[in-house]
Amino acid sequence: MFEVVTVKEALHRIINSVIDMDNEMEEVNILQALNRITGEKIVSSEVVPHFSRSTMDGFAVRAEDTFGASESMPAFLDIKGEINMGEEPGEDLKAGETMKIATGGMLPPGADSVLMLEHAEELDEKMLACHQPVAPGENVILEGEDLKEGEGVLEKNHRIRSQDIGALAAAGITRVKVLAPPRVAVISTGDELVSPGEKPKPGQIRDVNSFALAAAIQSAGAFPILCGIVRDEKSLLREAVEGVREEASLILISGGSSVGTRDVTAKVIDELGDPGVLVHGISIRPGKPTIYGMARKTPIFGLSGNPVSALVTFDIFVAPLIYRLRGLEREEIIPSRVKARVSRNIPSSQGREDYVRVKLEKEESGEYKAVPVFGKSGLITTLVDARGVICISQNKEGLEEGEEVEVILY
Amino acid sequence: MFEVVTVKEALHRIINSVIDMDNEMEEVNILQALNRITGEKIVSSEVVPHFSRSTMDGFAVRAEDTFGASESMPAFLDIKGEINMGEEPGEDLKAGETMKIATGGMLPPGADSVLMLEHAEELDEKMLACHQPVAPGENVILEGEDLKEGEGVLEKNHRIRSQDIGALAAAGITRVKVLAPPRVAVISTGDELVSPGEKPKPGQIRDVNSFALAAAIQSAGAFPILCGIVRDEKSLLREAVEGVREEASLILISGGSSVGTRDVTAKVIDELGDPGVLVHGISIRPGKPTIYGMARKTPIFGLSGNPVSALVTFDIFVAPLIYRLRGLEREEIIPSRVKARVSRNIPSSQGREDYVRVKLEKEESGEYKAVPVFGKSGLITTLVDARGVICISQNKEGLEEGEEVEVILY
Repeated sequence: MFEVVTVKEALHRIINSVIDMDNEMEEVNILQALNRITGEKIVSSEVVPHFSRSTMDGFAVRAEDTFGASESMPAFLDIKGEINMGEEPGEDLKAGETMKIATGGMLPPGADSVLMLEHAEELDEKMLACHQPVAPGENVILEGEDLKEGEGVLEKNHRIRSQDIGALAAAGITRVKVLAPPRVAVISTGDELVSPGEKPKPGQIRDVNSFALAAAIQSAGAFPILCGIVRDEKSLLREAVEGVREEASLILISGGSSVGTRDVTAKVIDELGDPGVLVHGISIRPGKPTIYGMARKTPIFGLSGNPVSALVTFDIFVAPLIYRLRGLEREEIIPSRVKARVSRNIPSSQGREDYVRVKLEKEESGEYKAVPVFGKSGLITTLVDARGVICISQNKEGLEEGEEVEVILY
Repeated sequence: MFEVVTVKEALHRIINSVIDMDNEMEEVNILQALNRITGEKIVSSEVVPHFSRSTMDGFAVRAEDTFGASESMPAFLDIKGEINMGEEPGEDLKAGETMKIATGGMLPPGADSVLMLEHAEELDEKMLACHQPVAPGENVILEGEDLKEGEGVLEKNHRIRSQDIGALAAAGITRVKVLAPPRVAVISTGDELVSPGEKPKPGQIRDVNSFALAAAIQSAGAFPILCGIVRDEKSLLREAVEGVREEASLILISGGSSVGTRDVTAKVIDELGDPGVLVHGISIRPGKPTIYGMARKTPIFGLSGNPVSALVTFDIFVAPLIYRLRGLEREEIIPSRVKARVSRNIPSSQGREDYVRVKLEKEESGEYKAVPVFGKSGLITTLVDARGVICISQNKEGLEEGEEVEVILY
């Protein structure tokens, strides 16, 4: 019933299925706000700075008193003392006067600019020779130049970075309303699975994907909910999904690498509400059998039980959806990458995107060489050995030795 | 006494000053291990997988029984039932026999490969026609192919990623020894500073750098210790540094933008032990007055009180040192970046690296345009408006409109 779709089409269906999200808000201290997303526009209730400040060590002046000054024909000004840092100047600056000021000092009323030390010569304690003219506003941050009262500090749905926390501190805002991180549930299915703390019997293996996906969810900025292991039976999987759907913003079902169990995941998504399965099969390797659907308002992925496939498809399909669910509307999250030349020919099939794990070797020239990691796709150690991944697009038949590629870093 | 050095020389002195670090270790659950650094080589005490598994839906066979099989001349095999997922096969596979197996199923003794469903035809419940030969090991992950007993899962000083957590789970390792994150103290100096919760009087401003740097420290993977605000007096600064040096792996002193206060920071570093100040002045804008030194075993930075300068130099000089202090010996941390074309000519001076804050605009072609953010360098809002920064190298006189650059993303 479902056709295999391109990566682009799959991403389009996934991202567009969650247009109207409604995240809860919480208030946090700015020291806990890093990488959180603003839940509202944050406005300054103050003027920053609330007085005009010097950005240089020098002398506060009226610019017009310096016009025409030069090395050979200095302007002479009366030194009326020094401005103490953190204090209000004692008196106003009148025509022909100047006061010594350090970087960050408050300009006295009357002054409109600062003459740099380098262009001033203190003839004695009372008299300054000014060797260069300054323009009004020069070497000064004016009152309100950083923020005006009522001006937006941060927009809504903005990812909070170090500098944003600085700007909030500058405006005296120590608590902010941010969006609650999405809660992403992981259900591992498979009759062969036991938890990592257990000793598997013959035929059993440990549940890898719950833990690898939980870490990937944390990396993407969401909160993982581990639901444990569910046996390969439709009623049990349905029960597990129903049990967590109230609490979860997104559900990942991992497992079902065999045809029969894959069908179970798709059926459960369809049974739990419209629109049901939206993507079933993507032209990508690894990850072709990836399933995505919406059971009423709950987005659900069916990822491979093969951890390599699950993690590669997580980065391509799940992470962008999590960014969307976090409230990142405007910003594109762009992963770290480096240019490298491939160390050997890498074959690929036209008609699908191939993701090839690579190691990086730095050459003497400073260039990187991307060396494919060999090994069967089911081996988690091939991902451990990899420093990143390269994508061979669907209209290429492979890469040639020495060809330049971008390595998306892990 | 100190010469202004290049960015490269400054980084060289900084990184090489901390050759023999001795991080404490702590043990964490693998679910808390993301982005932590391994404190020891982690070895598997088990074989993974501990039995040979099928990677396809199909039929477990002895490869030699299929040799020479073709569409026109199939090999015929006796179907001896089905292997249940997660269970040990009931009997061995003898010559001429086959058993149905799903992806992940355990190969019975005697079988060495799996014939894919697509190449098999069930003539009846007892008889299989095999239309293609398989090679020994085909469609199978062999016992121990992922990890052998005693094989290293992760090297020492390795940053733990999602896939690494998966590999640990596969080997049954649920707790790992990781290095304690470095503790980075921030001391803000300045007679004009008050804390963000306070209302500044005329001449005073709020302490921005403690909060912006604390966030930058968290971003770099370290733990911030906020020491508060210290008045511009050598004895007080020295007292503050001495008070935290036992506890801190690294101390950042922010402030001292005026010549007098900058000298205080350098003097305190020199007084507290050899080798003292190692860098005093770097050919970079912003950030020229940056100071770095070692007081016995404690690395100390003197950063500008100007938050833009402090944050730009943090990324270039402090973050690489923090990576080193975290124990990241081999791996280079490569920031996210995108290519863009500059929207206008940007002048620069030869002989220094210029860091220019930019916004990004996506063009219809999908290319990015880098638009410089204007405004005086003391304005924190210029960093808030920026999506990233471009570096104009010291042997360039600027950038021309349309020139391609790499934007390092914030």
